[in-house]
Amino acid sequence: MNPAQSIAQQFLQQYYQTLMTNKMALIQFYTDASIMTYGGELYNGLKAINEKLESLAFQKIVYKIDDMDVQPGAVQNSLFLFVTGSLQMDDSDSFKFSQSFQILPNGQGGLYVHNDIFRLVY
Amino acid sequence: MNPAQSIAQQFLQQYYQTLMTNKMALIQFYTDASIMTYGGELYNGLKAINEKLESLAFQKIVYKIDDMDVQPGAVQNSLFLFVTGSLQMDDSDSFKFSQSFQILPNGQGGLYVHNDIFRLVY
Repeated sequence: MNPAQSIAQQFLQQYYQTLMTNKMALIQFYTDASIMTYGGELYNGLKAINEKLESLAFQKIVYKIDDMDVQPGAVQNSLFLFVTGSLQMDDSDSFKFSQSFQILPNGQGGLYVHNDIFRLVY
Repeated sequence: MNPAQSIAQQFLQQYYQTLMTNKMALIQFYTDASIMTYGGELYNGLKAINEKLESLAFQKIVYKIDDMDVQPGAVQNSLFLFVTGSLQMDDSDSFKFSQSFQILPNGQGGLYVHNDIFRLVY
């Protein structure tokens, strides 16, 4: 596993773990420069993303990652990530999803989500 | 439809139309700065991408786009794209796929594919 893959895997593990245990804490991965698209709707910046997280109505969600791809992004030390997997909300069936991220240095030694697009794949 | 969506739709239409009619001409969308991941394997730059295109063994391929999402990318005038759809090779069954691109200005008034990750979704 190269360094980019290792960083990506660690990032995604923290991201989905946070989403599964405390969805509102997911906001820590975003900034006001972040853009999230969820089911075709676009949420721009912390306020909009926070409201979207609040609106997610599940009691319990379980993510299972099948595959993860990583590339260097368009700016230095950024990463372009692609995830496919399945998720289960409460007692729902399991759904396939794909999600793509671009994560950028946050100027404090960490990374933030600049681009995030999520889709269920039927 | 906003300007970014219109540019993205036009780009993707040209991209998949080229792939369906003349796969080797798809190289026009890439540069030596391009990175393509296909089925978990990474192809970096024109030579590697060209060889991968040559290796694709189908006689006929049909792409059908179900959904397209677009966001501003990490550098000025770049776009972050996400596509879900289905494809059929020769007489195969139809497979679901997801593909994510980051397209950047090529310095000549056009756009090139900087990042490209493709996955079949089983």
